[in-house]
Amino acid sequence: MRDWATQKAARAARIAAGASFARGKVVQAADLAPFLEAVLRPGDRVCLEGDNQKQADLLADALAEVDPGVIHDLHMVQSGIVLPSHLDVFEKGIARRLDYSYSGPQAARIARMLYGGQIALGAVHTYLELFARYFIDLTPQVALIAAVSADRDGNLYTGPNTEDTPTVVEATSFKDGLVVAQVGEIVDRVPRVDIPGDRVHFVVEAGRPFHVEPLFTRDPGSITETQILTAMLAIKGLYAPYGIRRLNHGIGFNTAAIELLLPTYGEKLGLRGQVCTHWALNPHPTLIPAIEAGWVEQIHCFGSEVGMDDYIAARPDIYFTGADGSLRSNRAFCQTAGLYACDLFIGSTLQVDLSGHSSTVTTNRIAGFGGAPNMGSDPRGRRHPSEPWLKAGAEADPDTPAPLRRGRKLVVQIGETFGDGNVPLFVERLDALALAEKLDLPLAPVMVYGDDVTHIVTEEGIANLLLCRDPDEREQAIRGVAGYTEIGRRRDAGMVARLRERGVIRRPEDLGIDPLDADRSLLAARSIKDLALASGGLYRPPSRFRNW
Amino acid sequence: MRDWATQKAARAARIAAGASFARGKVVQAADLAPFLEAVLRPGDRVCLEGDNQKQADLLADALAEVDPGVIHDLHMVQSGIVLPSHLDVFEKGIARRLDYSYSGPQAARIARMLYGGQIALGAVHTYLELFARYFIDLTPQVALIAAVSADRDGNLYTGPNTEDTPTVVEATSFKDGLVVAQVGEIVDRVPRVDIPGDRVHFVVEAGRPFHVEPLFTRDPGSITETQILTAMLAIKGLYAPYGIRRLNHGIGFNTAAIELLLPTYGEKLGLRGQVCTHWALNPHPTLIPAIEAGWVEQIHCFGSEVGMDDYIAARPDIYFTGADGSLRSNRAFCQTAGLYACDLFIGSTLQVDLSGHSSTVTTNRIAGFGGAPNMGSDPRGRRHPSEPWLKAGAEADPDTPAPLRRGRKLVVQIGETFGDGNVPLFVERLDALALAEKLDLPLAPVMVYGDDVTHIVTEEGIANLLLCRDPDEREQAIRGVAGYTEIGRRRDAGMVARLRERGVIRRPEDLGIDPLDADRSLLAARSIKDLALASGGLYRPPSRFRNW
Repeated sequence: MRDWATQKAARAARIAAGASFARGKVVQAADLAPFLEAVLRPGDRVCLEGDNQKQADLLADALAEVDPGVIHDLHMVQSGIVLPSHLDVFEKGIARRLDYSYSGPQAARIARMLYGGQIALGAVHTYLELFARYFIDLTPQVALIAAVSADRDGNLYTGPNTEDTPTVVEATSFKDGLVVAQVGEIVDRVPRVDIPGDRVHFVVEAGRPFHVEPLFTRDPGSITETQILTAMLAIKGLYAPYGIRRLNHGIGFNTAAIELLLPTYGEKLGLRGQVCTHWALNPHPTLIPAIEAGWVEQIHCFGSEVGMDDYIAARPDIYFTGADGSLRSNRAFCQTAGLYACDLFIGSTLQVDLSGHSSTVTTNRIAGFGGAPNMGSDPRGRRHPSEPWLKAGAEADPDTPAPLRRGRKLVVQIGETFGDGNVPLFVERLDALALAEKLDLPLAPVMVYGDDVTHIVTEEGIANLLLCRDPDEREQAIRGVAGYTEIGRRRDAGMVARLRERGVIRRPEDLGIDPLDADRSLLAARSIKDLALASGGLYRPPSRFRNW
Repeated sequence: MRDWATQKAARAARIAAGASFARGKVVQAADLAPFLEAVLRPGDRVCLEGDNQKQADLLADALAEVDPGVIHDLHMVQSGIVLPSHLDVFEKGIARRLDYSYSGPQAARIARMLYGGQIALGAVHTYLELFARYFIDLTPQVALIAAVSADRDGNLYTGPNTEDTPTVVEATSFKDGLVVAQVGEIVDRVPRVDIPGDRVHFVVEAGRPFHVEPLFTRDPGSITETQILTAMLAIKGLYAPYGIRRLNHGIGFNTAAIELLLPTYGEKLGLRGQVCTHWALNPHPTLIPAIEAGWVEQIHCFGSEVGMDDYIAARPDIYFTGADGSLRSNRAFCQTAGLYACDLFIGSTLQVDLSGHSSTVTTNRIAGFGGAPNMGSDPRGRRHPSEPWLKAGAEADPDTPAPLRRGRKLVVQIGETFGDGNVPLFVERLDALALAEKLDLPLAPVMVYGDDVTHIVTEEGIANLLLCRDPDEREQAIRGVAGYTEIGRRRDAGMVARLRERGVIRRPEDLGIDPLDADRSLLAARSIKDLALASGGLYRPPSRFRNW
């Protein structure tokens, strides 16, 4: 007779082993390393909570301190490789295998460790794709998560940074895995129940908040006039004609410029209420002026943003909030919303090739994917129409009869032809290819594939790839907005002129935009202080962004 | 000064109005209609929980009884139009606008009402897409949901049929909407907390369980030898060569036959442990023999299935279960898993045209989409490789260098060339097109688009559309497995022969399958009773499936 409850027995054994370090569910922080040695097993699949914002940092540090003679060969399945300790566990031999999504701040070190063979890489995922695998073939046996507070039954309050926690806990706890939470404090009653206590087995009082990175804060003071010009092009050349109401903005100064131009330039164009009303977006401080000016109806958030909590709590008609008044974010649902309920994704990138493939990888840095490929892809399972989606579909495929023609999601890459350090945006060959060769990866880490990109926006104009009828046209459309980069200078001038006549390429002047108008005076806020003022003092920028 | 908390105030007013019918959070069933008149407002967006399985039937009936003079023009945003009362509310003028996913049993009536203009249709969605819109532009103001039990604080226990509930509640409650739950009983302490009480505003004791439809139960006794042959083709011609471990099966006798052939035919082929190990799947009774024979490692479920609860509870190593021991299902996560973590979707359909588009719509029936288009589409945001996915990608696109070539999800349509009532599966023109014209829809309701379908399986063979290089080859590959249907008889015999030489079409004999071996003796269970026996008496079929 087969035993069909081995996982329940294994969890019970983990709980029994951990109980000797606990009073009820509560473990002391000082006992964390031996506690983890007691509840973990070599080879475990472990999710250490951490994404591009929120980090279970106390648990990460403790995991890096366990004895690799006792706990080794862990298979880490986690959204983010962000803290130094996330890689220390591999260096020390505690962990061996890795499946993850995002590694922004550790991009260089993770690349070195992959080259050095210290990490056995499963795959780099998007967030939503990794979450999907949590339920199929990468289910964690142990989850180490973070919350603001807990009661003695283990009910957790995550506060505004709910983020990945419900997803990680659901996959782990309902498949007989062990859930250990670090919390800032233990309280008699949590302000709201983000995670029910019967899914949580141990709670550790950290005595301090978990670490959060203000990743989505962009100082308007650093926005250039070239970025303002690209923002004007996006608003007048894309948002207005397609009528984009439901959208997601990636991170970056180009999209921050768009947000800050809505109440000024967008208002002048009469677009309030016509575009940018419903968002899948983190609480970008640069959206405050547009919210205050009445542009925004609703925002659902992946996570929160440092300093924005009081502002959000005072704007519940805009944000999703709980009974306690603070933001309820949820990465899995927001990624799903970005995939299936948005008509446009716009983001910056580091490199674009002549097929329109784009990548943020450079040869020595692997930043991971995060959410961009999920949002920056055409969701072929979508069945509900919208005006922008149908219009884009008709541009791409004028010949198929309308009832059998699918729409297209608008996927826009925006940037300056020469980026930071005067590095050209456009390249013959993505560095991602060299990286794939070096690491012997089956796939180059392409952020957004050329066949999903619909528009490329630079200060030279907009290339509408939907209107390109073959790879040559596509290449020349890209060259045609590549400015004075090597790629741009090698354009076929005659073909580019013809593409412009057809509206495949549109220059600022074709849209009635004078580049000389691209002035910082157009920004609804020109500094972080302006953003704080626009919020009525509710936005409290982290100190590193304050200079007053 | 703008008031930024109008929604919180509106919810407080609803709660105050409802409180006069409640003791604490508990409303008596007898007071439901006046209670709903008190808490609803004309024009509200309302989610009445109900999908293809679980129904908030008490609340549905009560909603159909409110006075349309008081409550009218509701905008229903719900997964399923399944119960008669779901359409009664439109007939009576209580509701006006509809966004939904699935309408299986009401397919004929909803078609009539759409023709008659009694329903203003937003769109027909997939489940996941509708959930996505709950967070962006179709957020419910009131959710009417169903659970097994509640405590007096409103903590809900859904039992095995958790399904849509967490998603609906999250979107509604955290956007200041009102959540009302019908429960079978009120208890002192729920067996597990599926929904925390602080998200739930009122609870109604129904005194009986909510309605659940045994939609995924297929009687092995009704499986034909032709279906057994298509199942053999799928196993030997697709599952084995691609090495499909992570998959989803749609509803139907063809896929039920595959499930029942794994422990017999699949075992003979030596495939145990090589294929079909990880599933996004409802608890299909027809998978019991394969589970018992050790084929299956893990299953995540959209919902539960009537009669399967004790079996599931006794097989926790296979299924996701809670601390109470019973299944935890979750439609949103399982759809996400089906989208991003599965390498194959296989489903039956009613009509396939010469481009490979398929549809379950007939001119007078609108069954909706459910989950099939989501699972039956190529997820372009996927970034993690797998063997089956890479192999399919290489077949589709041999010329692109491997590192820049994406894989492909296998999307298989399976059926007999002549279906129920001798109706041909293959058609020149989908009935969905006539329907789109009749209803003036912008899009024909295509279930799976031809460009997403990779294989078509009939008793005549397998057409591998990945290997087709142009629309002509594609058409002939489809005609080449269309048997004696009109479409099949009009094939270009020479071209079909060449496609067969290239392996684009594979006949049973090409795979070493003798159609005479397709015998019911291959089924691991030949009746519902056999399934119950295979489960050791743990599977308890609903009475309509019992004849002993």
